[in-house]
Order: sequence, then structure tokens, then C-alpha cells
Amino acid sequence: MPSEFTITRQVEFHETDMAGIMHFSNFFKWMESCEVAFYRSLDLPLISFVPGQVVGWPRVKVACQYFAPLRFNDVADVILHVKALGVRSITYVFHIRKGGKLSALGEVTVVCVTADAQGELVAQPLPETVRSLLQLAPESAWNTP
Amino acid sequence: MPSEFTITRQVEFHETDMAGIMHFSNFFKWMESCEVAFYRSLDLPLISFVPGQVVGWPRVKVACQYFAPLRFNDVADVILHVKALGVRSITYVFHIRKGGKLSALGEVTVVCVTADAQGELVAQPLPETVRSLLQLAPESAWNTP
Amino acid sequence: MPSEFTITRQVEFHETDMAGIMHFSNFFKWMESCEVAFYRSLDLPLISFVPGQVVGWPRVKVACQYFAPLRFNDVADVILHVKALGVRSITYVFHIRKGGKLSALGEVTVVCVTADAQGELVAQPLPETVRSLLQLAPESAWNTP
Amino acid sequence: MPSEFTITRQVEFHETDMAGIMHFSNFFKWMESCEVAFYRSLDLPLISFVPGQVVGWPRVKVACQYFAPLRFNDVADVILHVKALGVRSITYVFHIRKGGKLSALGEVTVVCVTADAQGELVAQPLPETVRSLLQLAPESAWNTP
Repeated sequence: MPSEFTITRQVEFHETDMAGIMHFSNFFKWMESCEVAFYRSLDLPLISFVPGQVVGWPRVKVACQYFAPLRFNDVADVILHVKALGVRSITYVFHIRKGGKLSALGEVTVVCVTADAQGELVAQPLPETVRSLLQLAPESAWNTP
Repeated sequence: MPSEFTITRQVEFHETDMAGIMHFSNFFKWMESCEVAFYRSLDLPLISFVPGQVVGWPRVKVACQYFAPLRFNDVADVILHVKALGVRSITYVFHIRKGGKLSALGEVTVVCVTADAQGELVAQPLPETVRSLLQLAPESAWNTP
Repeated sequence: MPSEFTITRQVEFHETDMAGIMHFSNFFKWMESCEVAFYRSLDLPLISFVPGQVVGWPRVKVACQYFAPLRFNDVADVILHVKALGVRSITYVFHIRKGGKLSALGEVTVVCVTADAQGELVAQPLPETVRSLLQLAPESAWNTP
Repeated sequence: MPSEFTITRQVEFHETDMAGIMHFSNFFKWMESCEVAFYRSLDLPLISFVPGQVVGWPRVKVACQYFAPLRFNDVADVILHVKALGVRSITYVFHIRKGGKLSALGEVTVVCVTADAQGELVAQPLPETVRSLLQLAPESAWNTP
């Protein structure tokens, strides 16, 4: 039962801006890609269109602090920790590190939604199959610079 | 029956790259936004989910030549001309001009698709309602530097 | 001395994702574009390359809460308030509203940087010319759903 | 002396649009990333800021034909071939294939530029160090469906 997951990324040219650094919004794309790879590693679909099942994990709250910029071709790790499991939500903490040094620190809360008969998204409790696959990371793992 | 349509855009910070200019891929987003505004001006939906109706206009061929870069805060016109009307397709030419000077010249061919019973996209003839709203631009309008 | 600034945007096709809504990361681009337009309205450069002057406003902390998704062609206001003025930083609150209804609530803290002799970015006190142009918004303006 | 280079990519969530497929503009980002990885494999910098040296490879002409959409989580190869070597330019052909099946076919022409004393970009002949590292692919390699 994993509580930590890491992917490695290299900054692409189109991710930079005229200040010569990765645009701040792209850190959120990296976090999402790490989350997707985490689900994939657990064999959990990020999005399903099977009626009555989980149809997605929309974000309700995200945040990021920036400590050191990333530049073109920089290689960095995106490290996910499960910080909190709510009835209907999961909160992840992400450390983005280049050579071990913290570049950015993010936090993302997603809710589990399904579609009702009218196709509207409705929050629902985390399915037991999902909950059983996730484990809280110890605070010492994610509450660290 | 229009054959020309123009929108005006200003280069945003996130559209630049570390070379200090608008990333080349963003010109295609500008062309698409011009095309969408063109459909909107004609009261034509870009995407419809009404069964049996047009569900979209996927691109089958796009091209762009770059003559002068655009920089942060630059204001430019995106000028659409209808170059060709096929049975199932439309070809647009786009001039992107800053102060009248040509920055980029694009061409985009889209096909009209609908969804079959299995949900697969199938090319279909342009509906008469669409065709009746479009008019070819004279070559002198779009074949110009 | 303004403490509030608004731009109006329409969701573009390329800003949507397969869930049929504007991708959450794009809200940050909208906030940045509002901030840029705010500076422009004050005749303040967002980025200058004049040595010894302000060279940029990198983000040190951003956050966003999502209340209601935006969809293709939706029109929404992005409303900026100056929440806090630090010695070297400014904190903005952004309300993104569609038809008055809150879609997203963001907060962005930027620092004023200049380049030292080696070209490294160094935080610096807000120039008096900048500070004199900004005014804190009352809490009642930004601390509202 | 290589004339072919391949990277493998997986479609990320943020690369999709509301039609449920990878947005057409992202194929150009994939081609650029393949080109960058190709230069890296040759130990050639994509961008250098050493005065008098190559400072970049701006695109002058790009094109793409789309044959089959890519969807979220799809894995595809991006295969680069050197199609033409001009005095100042290089033309690449890109096949994007999923399971061997052609999804998109792109062509990109870049020019070699350096900066003059005023910082303006000026096209220059391909440096001998670059030219000696590149080899034309046979037409049978890139002129294939």
C-alpha cells in the first residue's frame, strides 16, 4: 500500500517563458502527470466512463510555493505523498526537486465524482477499492523542506 | 455571406518561450480561436452533441510559415479567409499581421464530422445550413504577402 | 490609486480538457493575464530589461480553489484585488465569476526582483513608483464568496 | 552520423481537449521535444548564449497532417528523419505512430541563427560542426505512410 510515488521529468522548450524559466503554471501539469502515473501504478483509472463508477477526480484546491526556478533541459523529480484521505477527497503533497534541492512544493486536493442520471458530476465517497489501495504518508515524509 | 473574418489578440506572458518570442505552436491556437469566433459570428456551433448533427471540425492538415516573431504584449490581427470548400471539408488561410506587417501565414483544413451509432467520428458532407453561410474568398484576398 | 481591476475572458477550445471543462492550470494563466493588464493600466512594465530596474515579478506562492467549472465559450470575469503589500512582495486575490457566480478563487504572491551584476535575480523592495500606484483593497472586497 | 531518431511519449491529461483527443497543436510540441532530444543525443545545444555561436533554431515552416487521433494515456513514437540540409536550414519529417499505425505526419524547417552586435537574430550557414553530425535520411525512410 503505497504512500509515496516519484516520476522524473525534463523541462521542455515549450514549457519555458521569456524569463528563461519554466512557467509557474506548468508545475501543476507536472503534479497532475505524477498523480496520473500514481493511479496507473495502482491500476486505478483516472477517468472512467462506465456508468455508476468513478468518472474523475476534479481538483477542488491547489497550491504551490516556488523556491528555485527550473530551466530548459533541467531534470527534476516530482515526489507525491498522500497527505490526507477524506470521505470523498484525497490530498496530495508534491515536492519538485532538482538534484535533491527543493524547487517547488505543491498541494492538491481532489474529490471523487461520479455522474448522476442527468450527467451532472456528483461527489461520492472514495470507493473501497480505491481506499484500500492508498495509505497515508507519515507527516515526516511530506512536511519537510 | 462572409469570406473574411478578423480577430485581434495581444501576446500573453505564458505564450512566450525562453527565446523571448511567442512559441510557434501558439499561432495555431490563435488560428483556432479566430475560426471559433468566425463560427460564432455565423451562429454556427463549433461542437454540438445533438445526435446526428455536426459534432465537430477536426483538423486534417495544418501548416504555418513564420516571417517575423511576435513578442510579449504585441498586438496582432488574425485574418481568416475561406480558401476552399470541399464536399466534406473547408480550407482556411490565416494572415497574422502586426501593424500590417506579416508575422505568420497559416493554412488549416478541417472536416465536418458526425458521430455514428457506435460513437465513432465519421466525415460527412457539409450541411446545407453551413455551406449556405460560407463564401469563397477571392484568391487575391488570401494569396498575398 | 486602484485596488481593483477586472478583465473579461471567454474559454477557448484549447483551454478545455477531455472532462469537457477548462483545465485547472489555465485559471492561473487567466490570473496572470489579469495582473499583466493591471500593470499595463498603471503604465508599469511587467518585465524590463533596463539594468538596475525591476526585471520581473516571479511568483513565490499561488493557490486556487475551484467551485464551478467553466466550459467552452463560457464568458467570465477575472477580478483582481490587492490584498497585501509587503516590503518586497504583493499579494493579489482573484475572483473568477461567470454571471456573477464564483467559479474559482485564487491568490498569488509575487516578489519584485532585479538582476545583480552576475545576472542573478535578487528580491528588492518595491520601487516607490510602484508602491505609490497601488492601494490595498478593503478586506470586504476580496474576502467574499 | 544519424539520420533517424525516435522518442516515445504518453498522452497526458492536460494535452487532451473536450473532443477527448490530444489537441492538434500539441503534436508540434512533441516534434520539438523529439528534435531537442535528437540534438542532445548529438551533444549539440538547442540554444546557446555564447556570443557569435548558434543561438537557436527558429522554425520558418511547419506542417502536420492528422490521420488518427491520440487519446489520454496512449503511447506513441515520434520518429524524426532528416529530409533536407540547406545552407542555413534543416528540414525534418516526423512520423507519430501508435502501435505502428500512423497518427500524424509532420514536417518542420528550422534555420540556424546567431545574434549580431545589436542582438538581432541573423540566419547563418550551418556550422561545420553541426553539418558534420547530420546525415540525410533516404527518401524511402521518410516518404512512407
